[in-house]
Amino acid sequence: MSTVWGSNIKIAIFGESHSEAIGVVIDNLPAGLTLDMAEIRREMARRAPNGGEYSTPRKEADEVEIVSGYFNDKTTGTPLCGIIRNTNTKSSDYDQLKEVVRPGHSDFGYYYKSGGNNDYRGGGHSSGRLTATLVFAGAICKQLLRKKDVYVGSHISSIGNIKDARFDARVEANMLEHLSRQVFPLVDTGKFTAMDYLIKEAREEGDSVGGTIECAVVGVPAGVGEPFFESVESKIASLLFSVPAVKGVEFGKGFELTKMKGSKANDSFKCLGNKVFTATNNNGGILGGLTTGMPVIFDVAIKPTASIFKEQDTINVVTGENVKLNLKGRHDSCIVVRALPVIEAVTAIAIYDLMKNM
Amino acid sequence: MSTVWGSNIKIAIFGESHSEAIGVVIDNLPAGLTLDMAEIRREMARRAPNGGEYSTPRKEADEVEIVSGYFNDKTTGTPLCGIIRNTNTKSSDYDQLKEVVRPGHSDFGYYYKSGGNNDYRGGGHSSGRLTATLVFAGAICKQLLRKKDVYVGSHISSIGNIKDARFDARVEANMLEHLSRQVFPLVDTGKFTAMDYLIKEAREEGDSVGGTIECAVVGVPAGVGEPFFESVESKIASLLFSVPAVKGVEFGKGFELTKMKGSKANDSFKCLGNKVFTATNNNGGILGGLTTGMPVIFDVAIKPTASIFKEQDTINVVTGENVKLNLKGRHDSCIVVRALPVIEAVTAIAIYDLMKNM
Amino acid sequence: MSTVWGSNIKIAIFGESHSEAIGVVIDNLPAGLTLDMAEIRREMARRAPNGGEYSTPRKEADEVEIVSGYFNDKTTGTPLCGIIRNTNTKSSDYDQLKEVVRPGHSDFGYYYKSGGNNDYRGGGHSSGRLTATLVFAGAICKQLLRKKDVYVGSHISSIGNIKDARFDARVEANMLEHLSRQVFPLVDTGKFTAMDYLIKEAREEGDSVGGTIECAVVGVPAGVGEPFFESVESKIASLLFSVPAVKGVEFGKGFELTKMKGSKANDSFKCLGNKVFTATNNNGGILGGLTTGMPVIFDVAIKPTASIFKEQDTINVVTGENVKLNLKGRHDSCIVVRALPVIEAVTAIAIYDLMKNM
Amino acid sequence: MSTVWGSNIKIAIFGESHSEAIGVVIDNLPAGLTLDMAEIRREMARRAPNGGEYSTPRKEADEVEIVSGYFNDKTTGTPLCGIIRNTNTKSSDYDQLKEVVRPGHSDFGYYYKSGGNNDYRGGGHSSGRLTATLVFAGAICKQLLRKKDVYVGSHISSIGNIKDARFDARVEANMLEHLSRQVFPLVDTGKFTAMDYLIKEAREEGDSVGGTIECAVVGVPAGVGEPFFESVESKIASLLFSVPAVKGVEFGKGFELTKMKGSKANDSFKCLGNKVFTATNNNGGILGGLTTGMPVIFDVAIKPTASIFKEQDTINVVTGENVKLNLKGRHDSCIVVRALPVIEAVTAIAIYDLMKNM
Repeated sequence: MSTVWGSNIKIAIFGESHSEAIGVVIDNLPAGLTLDMAEIRREMARRAPNGGEYSTPRKEADEVEIVSGYFNDKTTGTPLCGIIRNTNTKSSDYDQLKEVVRPGHSDFGYYYKSGGNNDYRGGGHSSGRLTATLVFAGAICKQLLRKKDVYVGSHISSIGNIKDARFDARVEANMLEHLSRQVFPLVDTGKFTAMDYLIKEAREEGDSVGGTIECAVVGVPAGVGEPFFESVESKIASLLFSVPAVKGVEFGKGFELTKMKGSKANDSFKCLGNKVFTATNNNGGILGGLTTGMPVIFDVAIKPTASIFKEQDTINVVTGENVKLNLKGRHDSCIVVRALPVIEAVTAIAIYDLMKNM
Repeated sequence: MSTVWGSNIKIAIFGESHSEAIGVVIDNLPAGLTLDMAEIRREMARRAPNGGEYSTPRKEADEVEIVSGYFNDKTTGTPLCGIIRNTNTKSSDYDQLKEVVRPGHSDFGYYYKSGGNNDYRGGGHSSGRLTATLVFAGAICKQLLRKKDVYVGSHISSIGNIKDARFDARVEANMLEHLSRQVFPLVDTGKFTAMDYLIKEAREEGDSVGGTIECAVVGVPAGVGEPFFESVESKIASLLFSVPAVKGVEFGKGFELTKMKGSKANDSFKCLGNKVFTATNNNGGILGGLTTGMPVIFDVAIKPTASIFKEQDTINVVTGENVKLNLKGRHDSCIVVRALPVIEAVTAIAIYDLMKNM
Repeated sequence: MSTVWGSNIKIAIFGESHSEAIGVVIDNLPAGLTLDMAEIRREMARRAPNGGEYSTPRKEADEVEIVSGYFNDKTTGTPLCGIIRNTNTKSSDYDQLKEVVRPGHSDFGYYYKSGGNNDYRGGGHSSGRLTATLVFAGAICKQLLRKKDVYVGSHISSIGNIKDARFDARVEANMLEHLSRQVFPLVDTGKFTAMDYLIKEAREEGDSVGGTIECAVVGVPAGVGEPFFESVESKIASLLFSVPAVKGVEFGKGFELTKMKGSKANDSFKCLGNKVFTATNNNGGILGGLTTGMPVIFDVAIKPTASIFKEQDTINVVTGENVKLNLKGRHDSCIVVRALPVIEAVTAIAIYDLMKNM
Repeated sequence: MSTVWGSNIKIAIFGESHSEAIGVVIDNLPAGLTLDMAEIRREMARRAPNGGEYSTPRKEADEVEIVSGYFNDKTTGTPLCGIIRNTNTKSSDYDQLKEVVRPGHSDFGYYYKSGGNNDYRGGGHSSGRLTATLVFAGAICKQLLRKKDVYVGSHISSIGNIKDARFDARVEANMLEHLSRQVFPLVDTGKFTAMDYLIKEAREEGDSVGGTIECAVVGVPAGVGEPFFESVESKIASLLFSVPAVKGVEFGKGFELTKMKGSKANDSFKCLGNKVFTATNNNGGILGGLTTGMPVIFDVAIKPTASIFKEQDTINVVTGENVKLNLKGRHDSCIVVRALPVIEAVTAIAIYDLMKNM
């Protein structure tokens, strides 16, 4: 089943890019939580297409209407449903996609999957627009995690081949908080100019660039997770790979670990007073599927935006002909910036699902 | 819930490294399938500790007893339970682990998770030994996939910093079949000597090395998967990250994709006769969570074996003291070789779960 | 988790009696189904409060807005979300319920469950109003079942102690179809006057009456269901007991069976040509959790409406005082009539979930 | 999926009447529980075929081997798997059932369901023998509930048309405890002789009788459960209807409620000191799906044993002929006595699943 996720909470998402609305039902939230609506709006705004420098020229308010589960400014513990109307949709932009599939998108697969009944406008249910529902759910989970002193944050760790510095192995909440307020969050802000140039160059060429995001969760106590199907890595990765354009995930040093000897890769445990930590954090705060109490750290690969404005070779799925495609519409030349709040959101959902009853 | 997985079939695993037995219950298999027991035994043997060159000196037969769901040489469609007795277990090897946690393992997290009630012998439920149950379940799923003309295979794509060649974008079933018969499967067998040297050098040093595995699934039709929570990447990754020592997963070109422009990363669709393919396969046969009909291809990072024979710094969790740890026991200096059948097995489980009703 | 149900489809409901809206997300529907909207509206109207003789004076249109999963008059196979706005809500009627709990309702339990954060207006999420979402989902499942030649129908089998005749053991689809068109469906229409009298008498007294519903499903082939947790009885009963006011369920002769000898209770199998049937249908078309091919038949006990207009003893949960309660508002004196389409709806959902992949 | 159940714990059962073994995997148990093995054995013995007066002449020890999840006399929090070997199985008794289906059993449905691949010996996976696994899981849940001061118990409320007295609306734990020690638990022991006569008369005739069981759970606080899909009634009923031979379930006064006026059916709330109770308990301790804090009370209809020794009409499913069936083997003439611990067990499982995180 594609659209219901979770063990201790349940998230069910629905909607298409150009349907009446998109939305999410979040079940099994605790009762009595007053939502910080300004905070939710701020998270939504980070992801929203706002016509800004790193976003599509299309503007959508992404106002979430909470239609259930919230009464007298408190959650009731019943399913909380948030709905976002699709208002600024130019369906005619997509007429050519009735039969012609876009490279890099799910159009081809969806045509076969649905027997030709898919809503091809803007990618339909596969649209990145659906991530707005995840940001909303994630914003709520972030607030619930905050009550457990757990914080999620991220920065752009690379655009193309320009790399940012890394999180410190013991990154702290205030650093994450600081980054979440930046339009273009970097650990080493000196990398901004080069990254900015790459993005703008791609835009001018009608092309696109990708990048990576480093995300951290601090405050998670030791012993969260399970060794197998609900390993912390499995939970987080299953949601990360739900985010369109994510093609790789690595925890801690990830692929780099495969080049180390065990004696170097292993993080030594240390006691200092009654606090336990590891001297290094090569394993990203997770061992054998369980947290160690160190920051959970991972990287996510975001491929370059699939929608580009250069002519591409593709096919007409109905006639079976090879055709040329010239895309119209409004698209980001780099979605990494707008992906940051989505990556944080799904991480918050995954961690809260694991920690709810703790 | 840690130990039940799946939407269309259900896999429930149980057992500890030194408990009476480990096992797996597989529910919702189709009735009427005659299992190829020799094939199952062959898969089990690929993973089993057999005292061979790339394995721990410990030998275990890993004989699976099928105790239910199989009658007159056919599956009955009821839960099929396979049990493997733990026979060759030297529990005394683990006495020192009652209080001292091993770096790189889940011991520390499990101690907190279970309030000190974890079975610390050989990693308990976190043990890599549990992957034998996954190989068994995967062997059955492979047989079911074969009836749909779907094949799963893999090779060692790197050991340390020695890289093998890559799968061809249109790798075929016979190549995968061939590789599965090799003790040390490589695309470019010329890389064997250097890799072998690294592994043996590590063993002599009492150290360990890691590596990567490239896995492919061929024959999956277009349109399998879902855009979000059951994206093909999510399904496969959730199981891959269930395998101990896996720290990274990337589909297609993965992290490399983030350095490409969109115009290069996008795989162009082509029609040739009534066959559709993509000119390249940078996206690993998956777009927007759905298959394209091209081979599904991904890489998995396997960290160096955490159990090494060099002295390590760690703590006594009961007393809170910093201590030195010198491990005893029998461990692989490189688990990549034995991990191959496990990676294939969980991939087969994931793909069969997605394709069962097709 | 309270609000997600299903194995092969998933139903997630949300909303409160007086929240902005109620709704349902139905996931994993097949693509390409054109919904018969008139039929859906007819089912909704059967349940809706319409001010008619057997309904509350409150009128609500119960118009369902389909906001996703439907495109060009066909299902797309993505989650279909239907939303019903709550328009005609007199919240002030419920002011007294902030602290005073209604006998026969979940108010008391919900106050404790939610730590006093429940939406007490009209029963909040516990409201019978939520069944409108089930009728909508059920109407879709009925249309899907029709394509498999499976039909669901019901009649009032008793009001108070007045009993209707029983379904024939081999009741057919046209009978069920006929009954669904009746305002007050009875097998023996001669029982109408006495039942009608009971209901009106109760209304005049400010009291209420209950009754039973006999429901049948015809066309289900032999072998549907499972022996244990997904027995046909378990699946249907788990949804029937989700319907407010249902307090008993029996399949076939049910409790009466316990008074028979086995030799009488057992239904003999017969072959006639290539058709198999049972001479009797005491077991309601289900044996050992699996269907026999005979009509699935069961009875449901609907308790008298809990909201009555006689003074009742109860407590103030905040102050802990014993108080008298005189309810205001608009309530049915007998909800059996409006419960019929709900019982049919959840039955259709349960049966479709079991049969989806057949 | 037939064989995995639960939200907060997971129960997966497997096995056939004549397979190597039957068993159950219980996941997500808390760590650190020392099991009272004598108590588990006592519960198993209540259900076991022991050749006693109210049991089949077949004797099976029903020894459960715990193969995982238990270490140093404590649960580890990992999946606990219990296995029971099938030893005393006379498979040859069932040779005639290869083609001839037994009335009252799932044989006919299973033949179609499995395409003729079902294990027909002793009912295969549908066998009542599988309930031994539920009794084992239930015995553990009972011990966990005891730590929350929650107790489950039952008595025979009728055999044929002989009725026992009813539980008091405020039945207490010591009464339930007392009943669990009786071979033939009755509230009014004066009913024993007549019931005993009925059972023995049926046995002599080669026939069978059914009955009802009244079950109670005391100590459940107010507010447990959910209004819809996880209503307390839904949870309990979904498991009760998993038990072979159960054909009806009613909570509180159940079907009798439908004959009452609302003013009588509603249970008035009362405060006495800081204790809340209801004057009556017609609703069986559950309102709107949630507990009220009063004892949860329900009745279960157990049909007469389907296996009888009188000649029956049935069919040969392979040849399509009408045939006569004369059963051999060893069967209870009344399974109500042995069903008591099963009903209690599944009730304990359901309630513990609802209360685990409280």
